[in-house]
Amino acid sequence: MPLTANDPKRKTWLDVPENSDFPIQNIPFGVFLTRDDIITIGTRIGNTAIDLGALHQLGYFNGIDLTDDIFLQDSLNDFIADGRKTWRLVRNRISDLFLKDNDELRKNKEHCLKVLFRLDEIEMLLPVDVGDYTDFYASKEHATNVGSLFRDPENALLPNWLHIPIGYHGRSSSIIPSGTPITRPMGQTKPGDDGKPGFGPTKLLDFELEMAFITTATNDLGKRVTIDEAEDNIFGLVLFNDWSARDIQAWEYVPLGPFLGKSFASTISPWIVTLDALEPFRTNGPKQDPKPLPYLQQGDKMNFDINLQVGIKPKDGVETIVANSNFKYMYWSMAQQLTHHTVNGCNVRSGDMMGSGTISGPTKDSYGSMLELTWRGQNPITLKNGSQRKFIQDNDTVIMRAHAQNDQVRIGFGDCIGKVLPSK
Amino acid sequence: MPLTANDPKRKTWLDVPENSDFPIQNIPFGVFLTRDDIITIGTRIGNTAIDLGALHQLGYFNGIDLTDDIFLQDSLNDFIADGRKTWRLVRNRISDLFLKDNDELRKNKEHCLKVLFRLDEIEMLLPVDVGDYTDFYASKEHATNVGSLFRDPENALLPNWLHIPIGYHGRSSSIIPSGTPITRPMGQTKPGDDGKPGFGPTKLLDFELEMAFITTATNDLGKRVTIDEAEDNIFGLVLFNDWSARDIQAWEYVPLGPFLGKSFASTISPWIVTLDALEPFRTNGPKQDPKPLPYLQQGDKMNFDINLQVGIKPKDGVETIVANSNFKYMYWSMAQQLTHHTVNGCNVRSGDMMGSGTISGPTKDSYGSMLELTWRGQNPITLKNGSQRKFIQDNDTVIMRAHAQNDQVRIGFGDCIGKVLPSK
Repeated sequence: MPLTANDPKRKTWLDVPENSDFPIQNIPFGVFLTRDDIITIGTRIGNTAIDLGALHQLGYFNGIDLTDDIFLQDSLNDFIADGRKTWRLVRNRISDLFLKDNDELRKNKEHCLKVLFRLDEIEMLLPVDVGDYTDFYASKEHATNVGSLFRDPENALLPNWLHIPIGYHGRSSSIIPSGTPITRPMGQTKPGDDGKPGFGPTKLLDFELEMAFITTATNDLGKRVTIDEAEDNIFGLVLFNDWSARDIQAWEYVPLGPFLGKSFASTISPWIVTLDALEPFRTNGPKQDPKPLPYLQQGDKMNFDINLQVGIKPKDGVETIVANSNFKYMYWSMAQQLTHHTVNGCNVRSGDMMGSGTISGPTKDSYGSMLELTWRGQNPITLKNGSQRKFIQDNDTVIMRAHAQNDQVRIGFGDCIGKVLPSK
Repeated sequence: MPLTANDPKRKTWLDVPENSDFPIQNIPFGVFLTRDDIITIGTRIGNTAIDLGALHQLGYFNGIDLTDDIFLQDSLNDFIADGRKTWRLVRNRISDLFLKDNDELRKNKEHCLKVLFRLDEIEMLLPVDVGDYTDFYASKEHATNVGSLFRDPENALLPNWLHIPIGYHGRSSSIIPSGTPITRPMGQTKPGDDGKPGFGPTKLLDFELEMAFITTATNDLGKRVTIDEAEDNIFGLVLFNDWSARDIQAWEYVPLGPFLGKSFASTISPWIVTLDALEPFRTNGPKQDPKPLPYLQQGDKMNFDINLQVGIKPKDGVETIVANSNFKYMYWSMAQQLTHHTVNGCNVRSGDMMGSGTISGPTKDSYGSMLELTWRGQNPITLKNGSQRKFIQDNDTVIMRAHAQNDQVRIGFGDCIGKVLPSK
């Protein structure tokens, strides 16, 4: 199935602002509430949201094997379960429909009225019903930084880290779409001199700059996905802010891992950018030494060059960019993560989400958390309004952005935003 | 809403064998496939399965505020979301219908044919669609044993353990109903002398004897459930075998907790026994010293006296009972677990499942895992057929049972069974 939708020469009859994250080469998938209070699956070109449910009802997907209601759903899970061939057929068809010289839809004003929405006419919802969410820990720089800060700088990386894409199960229920406010979590923290644990709002609220991929149903329980099959089972990616309460996490995480220090909220960007759209941005990841076990050995260019950015916007202030990183820094690729996840026979379902873990780069301005950027508060960041930040304060808004770019095309993710409200 | 269904004097017109786990005082809820290939919600009295979907269609729940299709579903999630008052009305109505002197249904042979099934005519399915599964670590004896075996016998309990109901997020996709075979998982294990991790089928396959409770939707994101509200949000319990691969777990679990050492399978008993049915078996848990933080302080009798048993049946052999424990040994109650889970604002949904962690008692025959029973293989168990077990072997069947009993009534859970197949 050719990726005709990726052709960088394609132009659309829809208006696309310069440097838009959403040229006709992107065609991401999302779920939104329309001005008519209907929930539908849609895509976006420029600043126009496109109702795929309506398009399908009007017959524009004729010839593609789709159930009648495949886009009139509150999640993409069933569409994703249809598999890569169907994703490509649909994405190519959408691209064709909006091609500059294609008048099929363009000239039908009545259909356009039913299908096209301004962004202020819709509300973005969660794109998938996440059956299980797993978070990995795949940036060597992040794992090294955290190991240095919390354990032993001389032995910052634990012995298993270079052999296993370390990961853990996360909380699905508290994954929320960009724009949903975060309430500062309460919790227990390490005992003080009186031997009693502290209790109250977290004092060390942090973001974690991550990306997450969304899978189709890959395997039955007891079977495995090989490294060569892995990418066929990845539908696409979103930006992922894995909000973290460092003081709650530090007290609770031994021996079973992070729990309430994470489960209060995780924000995702609402448009799933397909792995297909990111194909031009393949690159090699860091050299893996020692060589992984055979089941994790992969070919070239299994990473993706995607620029990442984090900004903090204080109440009544302007935004300050505090980090610039890149998805290519991941030591363990998505394919390795998914393969490892199923090596024990664990079944993965359509709509499952797998986070990368914090993506920190090699330089101090490329770290993906305040914990690392301020080195646990030792080096506060000065915002443009003059105030300082060791961690995230009430009424701060954290904004993450991601885009891939070459000479010909820019594929972006839109914003992943969350404002922190005071504890209740 | 009175618990008339709990009246120990009640007898039913259905046949109930002596010592049945399912007298008319139980009335658990489950989901099954009927002989007509219909999936329905049902209950069980003695060895008769009762189709609640059919009962409702025939009008036997008239007067109770239920949607028409509430029982014609493949999960109990929506029924559980209806809340405790509805659960009690339905359970009382079922109890009334099957009372010895009630001829309403009994005399209607046509209706009985539609509603009643022998157990060999049905196939039990998963009772809920588990949105998120959390596993706690609530037995002090288990945490102490594991701490002694893997860390330091002098400081077996970690400093946080007496302050926090320690828990972690588990994998929902691999929760399976009793009877489903388990495939021995593959995975990485600690490096040998060559510095390379091992890879292959786990050599240390274990069970973990747990119970798990199922919640209704308790709170919106950012809100909390208080300790006094907690039990109102617990629908019922199942037996839970948290299968574990000790060698995979030991190599992977630092610092983010257990992952592939657990996620290959968890077996549950298919009938959810309501918290209401267990009301007569309340008891005090272990004394909590130090006193927990105020948000975790609870009233008396928040534990439940439920006998637990584990047997191993080798291929072509008879079963040997290897452990006898009790749910009352849990240091942290279910109410404390649920309250803690939401203290950071984490939202809990209808159908979520929370495991107790391995329930080990104070004596060596009451430990809830092979790891503890054989003290990491130092003291193998001799089965009735003369063979020895340090851990679980291929073609072994592990059988868990649970029941509560007093002078008047026995409320049981049925079996929680899994047979281990060789790795593929």
